Amino acid sequence: MIAVHLENGRVNVQNRPWPRRRPGDALIRLIAAGICNTDLELQRGYYNFRGTPGHEFIGEVVDAADQALLGRRVVGEINLACGRCDWCKRGLERHCPRRTVLGIAGRPGVFSEYFTLPEANLHLVPDAISDDHAVFVEPIAAACEILEQVRIHRRTPVAVLGDGKLGLLVAQVLHANKLEVHLFGKHKEKLAIASAAGIRSKLTPAKPPAAAYDWVVEATGTAGGLKQAVAMTRPRGTVILKSTVHGDVSMDTAPVVVNEITLVGSRCGRFEPALDLLRKGKIRLDEMIRERLPLSEAPRAFRRAARPGALKVLLYPG
Amino acid sequence: MIAVHLENGRVNVQNRPWPRRRPGDALIRLIAAGICNTDLELQRGYYNFRGTPGHEFIGEVVDAADQALLGRRVVGEINLACGRCDWCKRGLERHCPRRTVLGIAGRPGVFSEYFTLPEANLHLVPDAISDDHAVFVEPIAAACEILEQVRIHRRTPVAVLGDGKLGLLVAQVLHANKLEVHLFGKHKEKLAIASAAGIRSKLTPAKPPAAAYDWVVEATGTAGGLKQAVAMTRPRGTVILKSTVHGDVSMDTAPVVVNEITLVGSRCGRFEPALDLLRKGKIRLDEMIRERLPLSEAPRAFRRAARPGALKVLLYPG
Repeated sequence: MIAVHLENGRVNVQNRPWPRRRPGDALIRLIAAGICNTDLELQRGYYNFRGTPGHEFIGEVVDAADQALLGRRVVGEINLACGRCDWCKRGLERHCPRRTVLGIAGRPGVFSEYFTLPEANLHLVPDAISDDHAVFVEPIAAACEILEQVRIHRRTPVAVLGDGKLGLLVAQVLHANKLEVHLFGKHKEKLAIASAAGIRSKLTPAKPPAAAYDWVVEATGTAGGLKQAVAMTRPRGTVILKSTVHGDVSMDTAPVVVNEITLVGSRCGRFEPALDLLRKGKIRLDEMIRERLPLSEAPRAFRRAARPGALKVLLYPG
Repeated sequence: MIAVHLENGRVNVQNRPWPRRRPGDALIRLIAAGICNTDLELQRGYYNFRGTPGHEFIGEVVDAADQALLGRRVVGEINLACGRCDWCKRGLERHCPRRTVLGIAGRPGVFSEYFTLPEANLHLVPDAISDDHAVFVEPIAAACEILEQVRIHRRTPVAVLGDGKLGLLVAQVLHANKLEVHLFGKHKEKLAIASAAGIRSKLTPAKPPAAAYDWVVEATGTAGGLKQAVAMTRPRGTVILKSTVHGDVSMDTAPVVVNEITLVGSRCGRFEPALDLLRKGKIRLDEMIRERLPLSEAPRAFRRAARPGALKVLLYPG
């Protein structure tokens, strides 16, 4: 079978034997996968990654202990937890200190014709959700995580900074949850996607509104985003950090202390609310898909995804 | 009368007319004042300050509209709010955007034989509290602020980083509120003050315990403190930022996002809980007073307070 291999920043395609299904795992045939910014960061050296990347996918179960899974379309949670520690017992497998992470840390990813994942991590995909849309379940779940962490009052506007893939999904998820979202970005054509979804969107002004929002989501993926987010937050307000920026970020902590601002780091989320939003057709995704390429053209797909202004690039097996 | 003047990093003592009492203000005779790290930062150029610094004090009211105040010992809240905006109406005068701040921004401070402050800002000092101890009400209120912002479960240990004045007060306030405090510092003799108060205190090890605490208070006053605090915090844990470090701090936001850590900026607090703790004798302060000097020796007092390892230096009028 074909699998993508990433090493020392180089993406290539290899021929490999099928993976062996271990107890508890399902063997999955890839239907479609998405290239995420994290994959591009792995390529840049983040986590000293070497192996098969990929964690956004929809697949078909071809072998599993649970017969009910056979032939079904599935998506899967990316954190593989021990199931026994305090975190796991609290339902926070995503923070299990012994976890591996699909295609990111200690576990081969999904840019491969076949791959395995614990059955416990799988979610059936309802018929109402298309293959292409299902690839977005993982990043939409990450956007939904915000609402599990903080309680935002309706009618209190939320500023979302960044019109990349994550920013667009965060804006749409909050909007779908009936919050008033103001999206700030740098690309007219991306902001147009949010506008079409009914979200108030504007180009980030040279001087963004100071101390104007009680809630600001930082999703720019840039080192300067945090500083800007803090500057836009009212006293006693909250900044939600969604971007992982590789390396150190420079920030002035004085306004955080003086204005008693809260910063909340936010990562992966549960899949259920994401599947629910997709099933109800609440998230516009078609305009966010830039290109579809076969796994055999993964090197080109990575280059396309890394272009400035790129949106989602999907990989297909054949 | 004698007043301290700070300009371009220089501290000197001037002779001045008495301040004029405006409507709503009380005229106060200084009994004792404390030099705070913020005063030393003003000296270093923070806020482009020029004028009379000082905001930690106890004084005697010598003139006021409210006759009940005359002759009484008072301490005073340092934020002078407009009283009309949304913040003020919510009881958050400390965040009023039109506020001036005693001895810090737009309002002459208390390093002066006489000074004025709105009567609304004053709190009577109970007889049980000595003059020296009352000077600590403002920083103790800042430590109490933590408990107004977050809800820490008893039996969940709290790490306090920094054994300077603020760290020692934070540790004592949390301990007095029956929380299990682990104080980390760099000075044996300062840690001994906390130990005497019954607090578990230790020299910060070269490799501090990683991901070990659900709650960490950063009170080191150093640029490296935040990074260390984040490293010591468990997934989904909280770092409370008490230090204002002047200028940019370098930090890696990735662990904040990956471990979904919350950072909470924390500044001034209400005086009531601080007065209550002092009245009950819950905070050991005598060992924290390093020296007492008259206002006329303010330049020397500032030098003493700025020495590495210094604790509280008090100023007296004569």
